[in-house]
Amino acid sequence: AQTTRIAVTPGDGIGPEVVAEAVRCLETLRAKHGLDLEWTRFPWPSHAWHEEHGESMPADALAQLQKYDAILLGALGDPGPMDDPDRYLLPDSISLAPLLDMRKGFDQWVCERPARLLPGARQYLADERAKDIDMLVIRENSEGEYVSQGGRLRKGTPDEVATQMEVFTRKATDRIIRYGFEQARNRAADRVSEGRTRTFRTLDGRTCESQVCLVTKRNALRYWGDMYTEAFEEISKDYPDVATHHELVDAACMKFVQSPWAFDVVVASNLQGDILTDLAAVLSGGMGVAPSCNLNPTDPDMPSMFEPTHGSAPDIAGQGLADPTAMLFTAARMLEWLGRKDPAIAAAGKELFDAVAADLAENSGSRRGTHEIGSAICERLSR
Amino acid sequence: AQTTRIAVTPGDGIGPEVVAEAVRCLETLRAKHGLDLEWTRFPWPSHAWHEEHGESMPADALAQLQKYDAILLGALGDPGPMDDPDRYLLPDSISLAPLLDMRKGFDQWVCERPARLLPGARQYLADERAKDIDMLVIRENSEGEYVSQGGRLRKGTPDEVATQMEVFTRKATDRIIRYGFEQARNRAADRVSEGRTRTFRTLDGRTCESQVCLVTKRNALRYWGDMYTEAFEEISKDYPDVATHHELVDAACMKFVQSPWAFDVVVASNLQGDILTDLAAVLSGGMGVAPSCNLNPTDPDMPSMFEPTHGSAPDIAGQGLADPTAMLFTAARMLEWLGRKDPAIAAAGKELFDAVAADLAENSGSRRGTHEIGSAICERLSR
Ligand SMILES: CC(C)[C@H](C(=O)O)[C@@H](O)C(=O)O
Ligand SMILES: CC(C)[C@H](C(=O)O)[C@@H](O)C(=O)O
Repeated sequence: AQTTRIAVTPGDGIGPEVVAEAVRCLETLRAKHGLDLEWTRFPWPSHAWHEEHGESMPADALAQLQKYDAILLGALGDPGPMDDPDRYLLPDSISLAPLLDMRKGFDQWVCERPARLLPGARQYLADERAKDIDMLVIRENSEGEYVSQGGRLRKGTPDEVATQMEVFTRKATDRIIRYGFEQARNRAADRVSEGRTRTFRTLDGRTCESQVCLVTKRNALRYWGDMYTEAFEEISKDYPDVATHHELVDAACMKFVQSPWAFDVVVASNLQGDILTDLAAVLSGGMGVAPSCNLNPTDPDMPSMFEPTHGSAPDIAGQGLADPTAMLFTAARMLEWLGRKDPAIAAAGKELFDAVAADLAENSGSRRGTHEIGSAICERLSR
Repeated sequence: AQTTRIAVTPGDGIGPEVVAEAVRCLETLRAKHGLDLEWTRFPWPSHAWHEEHGESMPADALAQLQKYDAILLGALGDPGPMDDPDRYLLPDSISLAPLLDMRKGFDQWVCERPARLLPGARQYLADERAKDIDMLVIRENSEGEYVSQGGRLRKGTPDEVATQMEVFTRKATDRIIRYGFEQARNRAADRVSEGRTRTFRTLDGRTCESQVCLVTKRNALRYWGDMYTEAFEEISKDYPDVATHHELVDAACMKFVQSPWAFDVVVASNLQGDILTDLAAVLSGGMGVAPSCNLNPTDPDMPSMFEPTHGSAPDIAGQGLADPTAMLFTAARMLEWLGRKDPAIAAAGKELFDAVAADLAENSGSRRGTHEIGSAICERLSR
């Protein structure tokens, strides 16, 4: 088998700090199990790189990264040095560009963000059933509201008109919905193998072991809302074992707070998925623990990208305060993904997930620094 | 002074039930204070009307309604008779059309939804500070994502492309932002008169008694995000007494769950405001208590429309189970609005609000029917 190669892009702010802990855990696992795994660091902090080179990444960045099997990204976004307002020059649109460029350039058309309230994680909801939150939000990651088409007419005048076009294709709609149904099946199978079950009811009264909830705003954004709904109804016929459900995005956000434990798999558009995943992240304990991945499940030549849901948090950067838990869950998910080709790597991913979850459960509410948490988990891995 | 005239449109589902209680309360207040107030009922349940006339409202509905000073609307949305699937024929796009038609036709460019966790309301968040939630979400209600422009190319084929255009004008942006700042000032003044104060910090370290938080997704939806941001910065110069803040919509949703008590006035686009107001409604106790209004503050010839945030809830319709509290808070807000011309009506609005709030506080968690709650509040009003 070929060596599995990871491109590590620490990025900005707390990115390098949490990535350092992930790399230590990877190294521990590699040494322990003799994994055929290697990684290369690409230090392209967007601000510094931009100041020096006038661009947020090298021009051939995507070409460089494409040679790897996966990208482990810390965080992007750097407003500039906090103490020098004159250098507050780097808008998000530049410092975040690599993120969107990678998603697009590598056609990472799935953004997957699981939300499970694990023991030890902060519980924001009053209802005790929050402990049962266990959903997977699947966000369409390649088009929709994020196509960056539009412009500003009569810019800066009182008569200005700004437009933003949303573009949805049936092809991308079909594949994300089908992916959602496949994940629902996988989750049901995983539950069965863990001796757990969940029950969902279909509209016509049958019971199923998994569910896909489609989120749109079809009552106001009709064109793609209708296309999504039609695609969903069509594809659902291939999955009679999966219950289906439909929510409008506003109601979905409400129900995420009122009864999040009722959701299994949720499929949403790029922007609505962005919103729902941030909400789901809070419901599962907050940004400190929420993993995320941008997957291309169809083209083996395109690397998938793994990043925590959180951003670069410039306000706490450089102080060793950031919680690396989200990054470590993200690294675990990456190993699981890479493990499709190499079972030893998949097993290491599971081991990392279990170690991070155990550390979280045992240290609920304790105040520990980035490195301290990383060390505790590495120590646990080398037991 | 002229008689104040209200058009009452009960609508669908639970709409007529909750509206009946609102009308009883209005009648109680009218009789008690000899208010110069009258109302006319427009029974246009969308499904029945559609079956009989092939349209969701009479063709001249807007012309009829325009003669009134305000519209009190129950709820719209009717999937058809629950027990006759063959008649499940009325899509949301038809049964909800009157709502969007009124907002557009009467240029109700502000949608205002206050969120305050009142004593007795259900608290979904674990943190006790939830008791301090007191925000006003102001949604741009006239354009943006809701312009209904777009279409479906190669409809129904694998090559389909659906587009949806978002159109934002500087004029509508300016007026909604300015409205937000004015409301922030009003709220600060109201707090002072009630002996309460809140403190917000500006970016440059000053303290203010109110705040406006602008929500956009400017890092991904750049064109209007930038225009909103520029308008916000420009207009804020006229309100040095109001602190300013900016959130991205995904982060805003997260913070609504993590620390909603930190918000004062929130200004957002049509779709993002739709999402944020549903979330805000849950934070203040759920749909059973959340009022809403669609205002035209600039053109006295255009009636504003007052509707609860909730929908028509066909699943519980006709059973007398719906909580009329949201509708009654909405009616109170309507009287307050109409009271700009007639102080006696404004006072009645305040009286209604207080009675509904007192009823809520005293009956926390009790199971009462629609009519029972309405009666308790009418009784309180006639004391
Ligand atoms: C940084 C931003 C462009 C990005 C997005 O909107 O996709 C982020 O919010 C995310 O969810 O990964
Ligand atoms: C019914 C629907 C069209 C409406 C909206 O999206 O504006 C509703 O959600 C609301 O918030 O009033």
